[in-house]
Amino acid sequence: MTLSASLRVLNSWKLIEHQNCDSLSTPTQRGFPQVTCYFTKEIFLVYLIFNSSQSQRISWISDIIVVVSPENIETMKTIIEKFGHKRVTVVEGGITRHRSIFNGLKVFAEKEFSSHLLQKPEVVIIHDAVRPFVEEDILSKVVMAAKEHGAAGAIRPLVSTVVASAADGCLDHSLERARYRASEMPQAFLFDVIYEAYQQCTDYDLDYGTECLHLALKYCKTNAKLVEGTADLWKVTYKRDLYAAESIIKDNLSQEVCVITDANETVAQVGFLLPEYLKRQIKVETVSISQSRNDSHLQSIFSGQCYNFVCVNDKKCAIQETQQLVHMLEKSDIPLLHPVVLISVYLDISGNNSFSIGMEELASIKKFARETKKKNILVYGLLIQYKDPSLLQETVNSAAALIMALIKDRNPELIGQLLVA
Amino acid sequence: MTLSASLRVLNSWKLIEHQNCDSLSTPTQRGFPQVTCYFTKEIFLVYLIFNSSQSQRISWISDIIVVVSPENIETMKTIIEKFGHKRVTVVEGGITRHRSIFNGLKVFAEKEFSSHLLQKPEVVIIHDAVRPFVEEDILSKVVMAAKEHGAAGAIRPLVSTVVASAADGCLDHSLERARYRASEMPQAFLFDVIYEAYQQCTDYDLDYGTECLHLALKYCKTNAKLVEGTADLWKVTYKRDLYAAESIIKDNLSQEVCVITDANETVAQVGFLLPEYLKRQIKVETVSISQSRNDSHLQSIFSGQCYNFVCVNDKKCAIQETQQLVHMLEKSDIPLLHPVVLISVYLDISGNNSFSIGMEELASIKKFARETKKKNILVYGLLIQYKDPSLLQETVNSAAALIMALIKDRNPELIGQLLVA
Repeated sequence: MTLSASLRVLNSWKLIEHQNCDSLSTPTQRGFPQVTCYFTKEIFLVYLIFNSSQSQRISWISDIIVVVSPENIETMKTIIEKFGHKRVTVVEGGITRHRSIFNGLKVFAEKEFSSHLLQKPEVVIIHDAVRPFVEEDILSKVVMAAKEHGAAGAIRPLVSTVVASAADGCLDHSLERARYRASEMPQAFLFDVIYEAYQQCTDYDLDYGTECLHLALKYCKTNAKLVEGTADLWKVTYKRDLYAAESIIKDNLSQEVCVITDANETVAQVGFLLPEYLKRQIKVETVSISQSRNDSHLQSIFSGQCYNFVCVNDKKCAIQETQQLVHMLEKSDIPLLHPVVLISVYLDISGNNSFSIGMEELASIKKFARETKKKNILVYGLLIQYKDPSLLQETVNSAAALIMALIKDRNPELIGQLLVA
Repeated sequence: MTLSASLRVLNSWKLIEHQNCDSLSTPTQRGFPQVTCYFTKEIFLVYLIFNSSQSQRISWISDIIVVVSPENIETMKTIIEKFGHKRVTVVEGGITRHRSIFNGLKVFAEKEFSSHLLQKPEVVIIHDAVRPFVEEDILSKVVMAAKEHGAAGAIRPLVSTVVASAADGCLDHSLERARYRASEMPQAFLFDVIYEAYQQCTDYDLDYGTECLHLALKYCKTNAKLVEGTADLWKVTYKRDLYAAESIIKDNLSQEVCVITDANETVAQVGFLLPEYLKRQIKVETVSISQSRNDSHLQSIFSGQCYNFVCVNDKKCAIQETQQLVHMLEKSDIPLLHPVVLISVYLDISGNNSFSIGMEELASIKKFARETKKKNILVYGLLIQYKDPSLLQETVNSAAALIMALIKDRNPELIGQLLVA
């Protein structure tokens, strides 16, 4: 049993929910029975994207302490309750980084800070909510190093040269870039080391310090091991970082598509061609409709973290077919975690030159899409006209390009639209 | 006369062209007759987005020296020729940053480095191509400071604490974050100061150094003035930075829309309502079609850097109307600089319950959109059904949301599609 927080990308970057993804993968035992991971507040909102890129739960983290500012405590508790997190403890932050972290640590040592005192861990990981793309690998590296050295922290090369200024605002000296590193997060400590450091440090440290490794060195003579981290550890600081995070998450959600077709011969032909084109850009799973009625097969696709589905059929406005898939997706945890894209491809084999569709029909598709969006499933329509077999390849190629565009953008405003390949 | 480089956002981040935007704004004389700006190579590709956020040319920069790696010289020359840049000199870079910059400076001092020796400037600005969002304000600040102090450079607060590691890979000490700054670009120097520094510095400096301010201090005893820069100066380093840059540019392009309507009474009603809804999210200019035939009025909108146009009419597939606007846009410089979004809104006042459109008609719209895309104009269709006046507000609201989504995404795959509000 373990915990992991994840993101729902909602319209216009309203990051307001995360959830427990316990059911989505198999735990891996690594033999860290008593490790605690907790987050300092920083940008509260961004905490919620923690682990969005990390679908596996980390079984060896026993408790997660979330330190948030007083005004956000209720929101955070609501989120935790909604998604059934069992191992998260919310703690009120202080007015500085160090005071917040200290508050978090007290949960394991001072009764008045928690309704039930949590069991003191051997190692604690300290992480920033604003570094949401942390991977298990670096977490386990800093934990291993902390067990050996008492403290450890992730570092990265400096992007810019660091300079010191004199009192007159002019350059005093510049540091040789190669000899220094940026100290990033996560960091890990033997609990006794970091807790003692916080107990001994001064008010000046608590109010103006920024570096936990420094406290461990100054007050416990512990020279932290520095561990090279990956570029993913970057700190979401400016608006541009939110843009970058959005794009990274959308990229992560666009890795795989499941194409569902029925057994009708013509449909099957398109159902064969379409995946061929899609495979050039994305991993493709194909399922027949009869298979899709078999829950267990689709469940295995769901558990593979597929967030994109294409249903190919020859019925105009096949809402019922789509509805069935929506029900199955709802039963899974997939749309809780991230918005799911569902593209209903209508293969027009009538051979009519004029395509006609009633406004009421269009309105009912849009209404259906609006309802489905509330379940975090984005439904789009796509028409492929099957008239001239010699043009089929070009048409299917165009359909594949539209499907990729819809998957990559996940644009909630375009739901319920019928695109034409 | 001055120069400025800009970006065309192309599909999938193929940043391959920039252009001269001389004709787009009025020069402002600031009394810097002899300032030279040049760029070091770093990521060649990203050079091309230099100044994408900065539509005004900077009149007081007299020459721009672009230092690029040998394999990119021909590409760069082709770009400069294509867009008619007159003041750009391309120089071959060295194997390190300092050697590249030194090569750039030699253009003003050593005959063998240039077919024609450029006039030696009083001040040079050194900038990185990978910091494309630099504003005129910081450029003029570092130039003014360099005139007074001999050297000046932009700085930013440190995002992470900086640490020094000991030989065993453990923490040696950490720097107090508040006392240090990240040295960013642009930097400016009296030409004589920086050129002398480069002439005197050692091979070790040229091969391993990273900081021009350090050279000015070490070899010319010049303590550079440090100038606080804005967050825009960040260095495009990782893939996430390209994502961020793309989003920032798209944001910048989504500030204004021009709505063109005809005089028909019903169309005029929608033509009135639609801007009202759009105004909640974007600056809106409205023009009647008769006005739009008057070149000078539209020209004034073009010169205001509007990259989004909405044509409202009651003719199905009004390709001719759209074609006219396309011609006018082509004559302007707007689509050279950035992709232009052109949304043709068809107001269906027939009252028919069933909307029907021939596949050939749809195909011709798509063909037209594909042709227009080659001119960097993205054409989309949008249908508003005007049947029930009581529903008009809701429909127009939905149309406004779709228009905003198309403008913000600028998705080239969706061109030629007919969306329904």
